Amino acid sequence: MDLTELKLKSERIYEGRIINLRRDLVRLPNGREASREVVEHPGAVAIIALDDEKNVFLVRQYRYPINRETLEIPAGKLDVGEDPLECAQRELAEEVGLKGKEWRHLLTFFTTPGFSNEIMYLFLATGLENHKKDADFDEFIEVVRMPLDEAVSQVFKGTVQDAKSMVGLLAAARIL
Amino acid sequence: MDLTELKLKSERIYEGRIINLRRDLVRLPNGREASREVVEHPGAVAIIALDDEKNVFLVRQYRYPINRETLEIPAGKLDVGEDPLECAQRELAEEVGLKGKEWRHLLTFFTTPGFSNEIMYLFLATGLENHKKDADFDEFIEVVRMPLDEAVSQVFKGTVQDAKSMVGLLAAARIL
Repeated sequence: MDLTELKLKSERIYEGRIINLRRDLVRLPNGREASREVVEHPGAVAIIALDDEKNVFLVRQYRYPINRETLEIPAGKLDVGEDPLECAQRELAEEVGLKGKEWRHLLTFFTTPGFSNEIMYLFLATGLENHKKDADFDEFIEVVRMPLDEAVSQVFKGTVQDAKSMVGLLAAARIL
Repeated sequence: MDLTELKLKSERIYEGRIINLRRDLVRLPNGREASREVVEHPGAVAIIALDDEKNVFLVRQYRYPINRETLEIPAGKLDVGEDPLECAQRELAEEVGLKGKEWRHLLTFFTTPGFSNEIMYLFLATGLENHKKDADFDEFIEVVRMPLDEAVSQVFKGTVQDAKSMVGLLAAARIL
């Protein structure tokens, strides 16, 4: 059975700094019509930065949409036309002040396919070396280092509570 | 260090069927100002439905924002004022045609704290029994049953590629 929904009309609602919003009218597989709200996002990267003692580097930051501080793996949005690996290397330097000698692509996934097209590229960085930290002016970040197993425990304790970090840590713990 | 961002102004941009969008002006910890786009979402549930042979039930559906079919764990949005557990029980019946005798809350997490307040409640349902299937008119869903370990393999093969399903399957495989 073909489950595809066909676009009939598209309305631009908002063009923003990070996201855009549009609303489309679609034809469903049964011939009826429905509306679909789509948040357009440039895509993002996230990084498991693992040192030789199997510690990972997490970042503590304030997340305005949920009004709380979070403990996440390093991550960031893609610039227009930016290669995901280069973006990951840039974000690891900016947020954590590290560069990695070896990089491996682990997973690609969608954060919220129900209402957004955001795609997330997850990388593993090893062979870590210090790099000058150079954060964006509106990012305030504290770096936390802990054993990978401890970070996975924080997932189940609810301290690490954003989906990309949970995916990254649980996936890394399973394969490393 | 207090990383909180203080709301100075809030502008309603869109009130939709599933999501709303607002743009706030905030004061950063360093005193400067920045804008924050926030997609308001009612919250959602997701379910690891595990039978006595350690199979899980996945749903294949078309996701319009990413223009592809996905293989996900059962999930759905909260109705206004709805209890997450009741929502999970409703969604498992609607999407998969099952009810569970035992329910356990596994994790609560945020899908995209960078631009949305969506919160996701993840449950484990066991003691599964058949229930009349009763899908929403605009949901077209195929149910797929497979061993939990096989579903985790699908995560690493890229067949299961939405964050909540990856969190659910990887977390379940770690603790069950």
